[in-house]
Amino acid sequence: MRQAFHEIVIATRGRGLIELTQEVKKIVVAGKFRDGLLTLHLRHTSASLLIQENADPEVRRDLEAFFARMVPDGDPLFVHTAEGDDDMSAHIRTALTAVSLSLPVHNGELVLGTWQGIYLWEHRTHPHSRRVSLHIIGE
Amino acid sequence: MRQAFHEIVIATRGRGLIELTQEVKKIVVAGKFRDGLLTLHLRHTSASLLIQENADPEVRRDLEAFFARMVPDGDPLFVHTAEGDDDMSAHIRTALTAVSLSLPVHNGELVLGTWQGIYLWEHRTHPHSRRVSLHIIGE
Amino acid sequence: MRQAFHEIVIATRGRGLIELTQEVKKIVVAGKFRDGLLTLHLRHTSASLLIQENADPEVRRDLEAFFARMVPDGDPLFVHTAEGDDDMSAHIRTALTAVSLSLPVHNGELVLGTWQGIYLWEHRTHPHSRRVSLHIIGE
Repeated sequence: MRQAFHEIVIATRGRGLIELTQEVKKIVVAGKFRDGLLTLHLRHTSASLLIQENADPEVRRDLEAFFARMVPDGDPLFVHTAEGDDDMSAHIRTALTAVSLSLPVHNGELVLGTWQGIYLWEHRTHPHSRRVSLHIIGE
Repeated sequence: MRQAFHEIVIATRGRGLIELTQEVKKIVVAGKFRDGLLTLHLRHTSASLLIQENADPEVRRDLEAFFARMVPDGDPLFVHTAEGDDDMSAHIRTALTAVSLSLPVHNGELVLGTWQGIYLWEHRTHPHSRRVSLHIIGE
Repeated sequence: MRQAFHEIVIATRGRGLIELTQEVKKIVVAGKFRDGLLTLHLRHTSASLLIQENADPEVRRDLEAFFARMVPDGDPLFVHTAEGDDDMSAHIRTALTAVSLSLPVHNGELVLGTWQGIYLWEHRTHPHSRRVSLHIIGE
């Protein structure tokens, strides 16, 4: 049994979903793991990791529209406003989703459904540099 | 240290929660793991894995009613409507909950609270066949 | 490769966020793990584990205010009301967040972002005793 660590750095262009599936798969293959457990952890509090449909881009558009309506930027309820209208809404969107994900690796492949893609979801409106830590344990 | 893989296939009857706790516990016992980490991953984007109260069935009824009101089927906001009124709402319900869960196994038992059950939450209104991948690492 | 198990017991004072970061870090250091995977699991269905900003306390205040408005106590939709106005809302808040978290441990340190803290989020209005199971696998 052995472990591997990697870091993926993503330059976001502001709010939106960026697919990481191919990059993550490449790291699993390069590490020559046949069987194991992959964990991804995003080191931020205003962006998320999400597994969602990677076929129709309208799914991502609707996700974005729904979350924007459910968690409005500049909500008068917010006291934490010094970093902009989109800062507190970004923290809440993060709390409602996830910053860590674990997936099995079996027979050399990441166990994902046919339509599942791994996404970084940037919740801030301005571009940010985001770091995802990747850990694999297995053999 | 060793690993085990399983797949649980569940035929859902449409929207609702289906308990998997006993089935998961049986796999842990059959694998003869004394100590380890169990990970469940659901290979779909319109259903979830949820840990919730397994005592009063009214909790599940209220969860369902609350999510149905918070994420309305056929919301006019949605553009992705080709697969039915309940498709985009199902994706959003999935984003708001989880598709992967990790739980310790200690002294031969899954570490769960007294009232915690593991559920598959079907978000589509029609029956579906759902696959849950199960991974255990330990000894 | 080896494993360690711990349990953290937290006496909450009612609804609110309690930081666990230092306590979790101490357990990782005491266990002398250089590299591995840490998993936390909360054994309850009306409280959550959350990774959020640990700098400005107003972030926690706004999270609390937003969730209280989004999931109102005593919502007339609820049928499960025997345990009080805040019971069903607590279950829903738990379903919308998480009860388990996995984080890599690398070079003897828990991999967290600069602003990330680990919190127990009590959703009930009265004080409760909460148990968090901690598992580490690594070397």
